[in-house]
Amino acid sequence: MNIRISKNKFYEALQIVSRAIAPNSPVPALSGIKIEAFTNELVITGSDADISIKMVLSNETEPELNLSVIEEGSVVIDYRYLNEIVRKIDSEEIQIEIIDGTLTRFSGGKAEFKINGFRSSDYPTIDFSIPANHFTIKCQKLSEIIEETAFAVNAKDTRVILTGVNMKCDGSVLTCTATDSYRLAKKTISTECEPFGITVVAKTLNMARSIFGSSDSDVEISQNEKKIVFSEGGIIMQSRLLDGTFPETERLIPTEFSRELLINRRSLISALDRSSFIKTDNMAIIRCQISGNEVILTNKSQEIGEAHEELIAENYTGEPLDISFSGTYVEDAAKALSSENILIKFTGEMKPFILVNEGDDDSLLQLVLPVRTYN
Amino acid sequence: MNIRISKNKFYEALQIVSRAIAPNSPVPALSGIKIEAFTNELVITGSDADISIKMVLSNETEPELNLSVIEEGSVVIDYRYLNEIVRKIDSEEIQIEIIDGTLTRFSGGKAEFKINGFRSSDYPTIDFSIPANHFTIKCQKLSEIIEETAFAVNAKDTRVILTGVNMKCDGSVLTCTATDSYRLAKKTISTECEPFGITVVAKTLNMARSIFGSSDSDVEISQNEKKIVFSEGGIIMQSRLLDGTFPETERLIPTEFSRELLINRRSLISALDRSSFIKTDNMAIIRCQISGNEVILTNKSQEIGEAHEELIAENYTGEPLDISFSGTYVEDAAKALSSENILIKFTGEMKPFILVNEGDDDSLLQLVLPVRTYN
Repeated sequence: MNIRISKNKFYEALQIVSRAIAPNSPVPALSGIKIEAFTNELVITGSDADISIKMVLSNETEPELNLSVIEEGSVVIDYRYLNEIVRKIDSEEIQIEIIDGTLTRFSGGKAEFKINGFRSSDYPTIDFSIPANHFTIKCQKLSEIIEETAFAVNAKDTRVILTGVNMKCDGSVLTCTATDSYRLAKKTISTECEPFGITVVAKTLNMARSIFGSSDSDVEISQNEKKIVFSEGGIIMQSRLLDGTFPETERLIPTEFSRELLINRRSLISALDRSSFIKTDNMAIIRCQISGNEVILTNKSQEIGEAHEELIAENYTGEPLDISFSGTYVEDAAKALSSENILIKFTGEMKPFILVNEGDDDSLLQLVLPVRTYN
Repeated sequence: MNIRISKNKFYEALQIVSRAIAPNSPVPALSGIKIEAFTNELVITGSDADISIKMVLSNETEPELNLSVIEEGSVVIDYRYLNEIVRKIDSEEIQIEIIDGTLTRFSGGKAEFKINGFRSSDYPTIDFSIPANHFTIKCQKLSEIIEETAFAVNAKDTRVILTGVNMKCDGSVLTCTATDSYRLAKKTISTECEPFGITVVAKTLNMARSIFGSSDSDVEISQNEKKIVFSEGGIIMQSRLLDGTFPETERLIPTEFSRELLINRRSLISALDRSSFIKTDNMAIIRCQISGNEVILTNKSQEIGEAHEELIAENYTGEPLDISFSGTYVEDAAKALSSENILIKFTGEMKPFILVNEGDDDSLLQLVLPVRTYN
């Protein structure tokens, strides 16, 4: 292998595929980035065995790449050395040449590095085939869905299936649901696709968001019973799916409500944010008392002290209410919503309540379970 | 105690005194900030028992403070809650009132917090008296001295006295010296003061730099055999001194040289920075071969590979040289210097060498010991 390539463009690409690499992989070659040079393109791959990212770099799709392949070939180089060398090298172009077995020379300006790599035959074979069943959405829409749901997964691995976001399609509507058993976030969008049902670990989705999120083009999402594949431009990112059955969550969501609170979203977030530093058993339990349009939030701890906030509701219908909940959960839910005022619908003091955007838009629903207190 | 004060000005002051607080102090009251309200001023204090910072806040020196003391008194409040409340409260002014024993109410806007504090009698007595022996320098000059020397202390506590910078004054010249036994940084400035010799832990100096460094006023430095005190405006920061005798370093500094290299400082730093990622026993050992005006830097490791850099000297006098050193140490030394080209003076391949700014300015000297290699 012997290639020349634009330093900046190559560095940008390395930043993307590096995300999939786990620093202390038990498979030594997986601490490297696989570089494959073909006649007209360069393919780079990073993987932690679960999540894999492949990028195809060619002058055709990216003229500023200035790629010239003098000799085909492939090698695997530790991602830390590779990133370090490419970042610091002081020239517009970088030359990468295998000089002896896996010993690879990187040169640019007056600097030259020789790094011991791995043979690409030592790199695990990754099947990057694209499943047939797919749909397409705007990158920004994908980012939005992830932002609105993925925070609600169970971050602790106690029930592995709950560390993922369930994506279910009935042919025309895609429903994304995340829950940790104490709260739930559900987003629906219309999309045309063969029906499917998969659960994708939140880490994968957050990585997809950071890679594709800011682009205004379309990302193609394909899946089968084994994997999900995101592809856009020359980037293919894929991940294993979570095994197991995602709980039936529909029956948890109340459909009739006895009380409705319309409240300014930012004021609610600020008030919760201020009072949540008082924690009992590592949780900020907020007591919310609503009567007329007056909303009083209090948070007490024997040890630390007390926070007291008064808010005025835009509107409230129903009997007075005295309910307690995790301040962080309601704050997270309010942050995931987007309208100026949000609607909080209650069924009773010990029943789950839901938060939605104001108006008729029920495509995003946030549900929180109250907390029992004894004060 | 019952006071009103500008939220922003109070928050800024808390940020300064908080620096001295160690999060897990064995003395519970030391996790707090002591707030004392007197007729016309507020005094706040933070300390970790070794380093203490006191700020005197009054409308006289800071009209925007808008301080009004309704009732004198004092209390100690956990710095985490205090910072959190003051940062997030949504009003221009904040009211702080002791309502029951040490239970203190903070209010602003529609928010109110009651926090359990400590009695100020539980706070250790800190003697903030100012020693008689003092001198005055520009804050920026102080910052410069610290930046040029403190990096060279021994960061590991193996010889406690070497974790500090030695400050020695003969009446007209102040000499600041830091060494970890493998390198040394020495700065001299002229100042008028009674002779003294003290060693100040680098942490204290770095904290002083971050508190006073950016101001263009003068800072007063006083010291006795127990402590050093920095004072400027309403801020008094003091710290215990290190016990023990600082080694005699003067005899380590060679005065006659057989070879002199004049080299561009930035190019040298870049080349060392690039090649220092190859580490042997956690140290980047750079071999430097100088012949004529050609300077070749190499760094080899059996395991990782090799870095090779070529530089052209501005000037070189003396026999060809083949010397090895810690890349990080020479890079740190070059960074602490400031002229466009720097002068590196060698005595021999296994003898300490020194780095100074170009020209006649010998007020800052950096010394590095070579490393023995067997290649």
